[in-house]
Amino acid sequence: MEAYEYLEKIRAAAPRVHCITNYVTAHDVANMILACGANPVMADEPQEMGEITAHAGALALNMGTPGERREQAMLAAGKAANGNGIPVVLDPVGVGASAFRRKMAEELLGAVTFTAIRGNMSEIRTLSELAEKKAAGAAGGVDVRPVDVVTEETLAEAVTFVKAVSKRLGAVVAVTGAIDLVSDGQQCVVIRGGREEMSRVTGTGCQLSGLAAAFLAVARNMEAPAGSTGGNTAGGAACAARGMEAVAAAVCVMNAAGEIAWEQRGLCGGNASYGTGIIDAVYRMDQKMLEGRIRYEVR
Amino acid sequence: MEAYEYLEKIRAAAPRVHCITNYVTAHDVANMILACGANPVMADEPQEMGEITAHAGALALNMGTPGERREQAMLAAGKAANGNGIPVVLDPVGVGASAFRRKMAEELLGAVTFTAIRGNMSEIRTLSELAEKKAAGAAGGVDVRPVDVVTEETLAEAVTFVKAVSKRLGAVVAVTGAIDLVSDGQQCVVIRGGREEMSRVTGTGCQLSGLAAAFLAVARNMEAPAGSTGGNTAGGAACAARGMEAVAAAVCVMNAAGEIAWEQRGLCGGNASYGTGIIDAVYRMDQKMLEGRIRYEVR
Amino acid sequence: MEAYEYLEKIRAAAPRVHCITNYVTAHDVANMILACGANPVMADEPQEMGEITAHAGALALNMGTPGERREQAMLAAGKAANGNGIPVVLDPVGVGASAFRRKMAEELLGAVTFTAIRGNMSEIRTLSELAEKKAAGAAGGVDVRPVDVVTEETLAEAVTFVKAVSKRLGAVVAVTGAIDLVSDGQQCVVIRGGREEMSRVTGTGCQLSGLAAAFLAVARNMEAPAGSTGGNTAGGAACAARGMEAVAAAVCVMNAAGEIAWEQRGLCGGNASYGTGIIDAVYRMDQKMLEGRIRYEVR
Repeated sequence: MEAYEYLEKIRAAAPRVHCITNYVTAHDVANMILACGANPVMADEPQEMGEITAHAGALALNMGTPGERREQAMLAAGKAANGNGIPVVLDPVGVGASAFRRKMAEELLGAVTFTAIRGNMSEIRTLSELAEKKAAGAAGGVDVRPVDVVTEETLAEAVTFVKAVSKRLGAVVAVTGAIDLVSDGQQCVVIRGGREEMSRVTGTGCQLSGLAAAFLAVARNMEAPAGSTGGNTAGGAACAARGMEAVAAAVCVMNAAGEIAWEQRGLCGGNASYGTGIIDAVYRMDQKMLEGRIRYEVR
Repeated sequence: MEAYEYLEKIRAAAPRVHCITNYVTAHDVANMILACGANPVMADEPQEMGEITAHAGALALNMGTPGERREQAMLAAGKAANGNGIPVVLDPVGVGASAFRRKMAEELLGAVTFTAIRGNMSEIRTLSELAEKKAAGAAGGVDVRPVDVVTEETLAEAVTFVKAVSKRLGAVVAVTGAIDLVSDGQQCVVIRGGREEMSRVTGTGCQLSGLAAAFLAVARNMEAPAGSTGGNTAGGAACAARGMEAVAAAVCVMNAAGEIAWEQRGLCGGNASYGTGIIDAVYRMDQKMLEGRIRYEVR
Repeated sequence: MEAYEYLEKIRAAAPRVHCITNYVTAHDVANMILACGANPVMADEPQEMGEITAHAGALALNMGTPGERREQAMLAAGKAANGNGIPVVLDPVGVGASAFRRKMAEELLGAVTFTAIRGNMSEIRTLSELAEKKAAGAAGGVDVRPVDVVTEETLAEAVTFVKAVSKRLGAVVAVTGAIDLVSDGQQCVVIRGGREEMSRVTGTGCQLSGLAAAFLAVARNMEAPAGSTGGNTAGGAACAARGMEAVAAAVCVMNAAGEIAWEQRGLCGGNASYGTGIIDAVYRMDQKMLEGRIRYEVR
């Protein structure tokens, strides 16, 4: 299915996306979710997570500006999502930056089944190490070498690594950067596009994770492709079968928006107006705007 | 009094508006309050509420991203406002979404006298049910049927409902949507205007509630109209008499800003830049810009 | 050294700036830090402060929307910064507004050595009074009279006051307003520039404090000028020697950005788009844009 079809389905169904996210980029995540046609529900009080999540089409957990209260909310919401077959996305912001975040990630990975996990290479590497540490007691280490930056030179190695991490974590894994990789453990979609200037806008990664959750919300209600068998508790069979496709489609739309907003920036532009332009581009996105901007291969 | 006169008075007096609001839209609420000429004071530490609120011209409580600490802050600030005759606005964001929020709203309605309450129809309906439940023990139910969406067809019914809710809650009630209704229990101002695209910008409702608080801050210092008698503790006699007018004026200014920003949007616009444009339009708003844009009737 | 050289060094070194800041303006502070070429790390969980701060090039503490948890984070981060020779900036937002904030400021001033403190005249006056109260027990009061607003008429008096406060607090003190003053206790840089409309944009003060932290991050790695002797624990000898210069350079860049964004505002502008424009201008800032915009004298 094409990226644009996802947007059409989101605009028709207007699924709710429950976000537990940091206070720095919460506003832009909400606006990005509105831009693609979905409805954000921003809530992080642990006591109300069961009810809020149960009525959502997807859940997005973002580890920026973490704290104990927000962690409790994430655990409660994640379990509610799993119990209701609702897809869950994890954005492990800065997970390698502190013992507190690593412990939080371990607890989340232990208690919640994630449909997809999106981060930069450094964040995904930390998650991989945490999972490896846990597995090591039982089955010994794994020796896939993570790369620092995904370039054409390190691509083959990076693909192998991302596939292995996806298998290990039992989730679609998206590593975004100059080249984006999205894998379900079997295959890996290699996506080229976007602009490096997107990294100078605070929150574009958070926004992409929210966007991916919206894409998974509609994937959940699609028929699973013929021959697919079951799926995990995080979104059901269709998400298990289409999760990689849905996340890759979200990455492609975000990249296209980044390219379009860059081309249309004014002479007086900068990173702040560029951020506004990226959300605006998703809001206006149609099939014509996407033409020639979806550049990927499956490995 | 006209909507523009309120803006003039706000710009001259620059009242402080104390906001306890969610972290998703706090930035835009602050900028909107600055745009109309008032000064935002964003603070939610329970221990400092007495002092902060006492020096404000109005208080705006917004239930988005609720939590126990913020609820304590709202209770303390609400009582300080009531004790000092300072108008208080409640924005019951998503109050129907969880038992936690319903309980929080019950506690707020029980402890604080509100000058005005602004929400969408679904939120106001939930508040009405909560108040009815409480009243039912003593006096039996009320049988005004709420409508789902205010259209020309359901308008008469909706007006009756909003008047009844206003009486029941003892506050000016504003239900905003395609058609906006503002009632003080006796009369109802029916306002047409704005753009439906405003609902694709996160936080426009929160901004309107902040704007309404700024309008009430200056209403508080006006003479009460001849013949008005007393008033509740939430803003004193002038707010009791002029509350509906002030809130309706704020709705009209917000609608006008939404129309103007839409007309002036660029080819590369979207919901993010539209949000910026709405605040900008309030900042620039003058009498000429409002001409032909204030469309209301009183029922 | 010139203001532009600081920008060049920041863009080359991309230092991390750890911010513990209010949720109202956190997004814009992050974007401003990215705009100047540095990397924001927004984190306020007390348990992770030691690790996060230790890897930063500077720390910025902002007292807006305070609370006990954030105060604990600031104390932990401030000590970690002091222990590692990392410069620390304090922005005492609304410190005079409540006993809670005054107590928080006293605790911060007692436990952390600050490299620089930036606020408006009213905030700096409150800090001065707190420091005076503490000193009074031992050595009697100080009789420098603070002024309300810095104008050409009150300038001499204000310069004397800011020098005295800087000495008393043991930090570079920046008082920003229509005329900006930056003093290290010995000298005072008097800066003219910027636009008064900047005060109608929420968070420009917070952004400037973040910017100052980025400037101090590179000052820390410069050679101390010949003849400078030691320095406090907050940034080491180079920061002690260059702190005033670095903060004054950040003020000049912010003022220039405010002027440029104002000149380039569209007909449909307002405070929201002006805020975007200021960050954009810092992003684009080059030597030519700064020409004729750096207007200061040293007293």
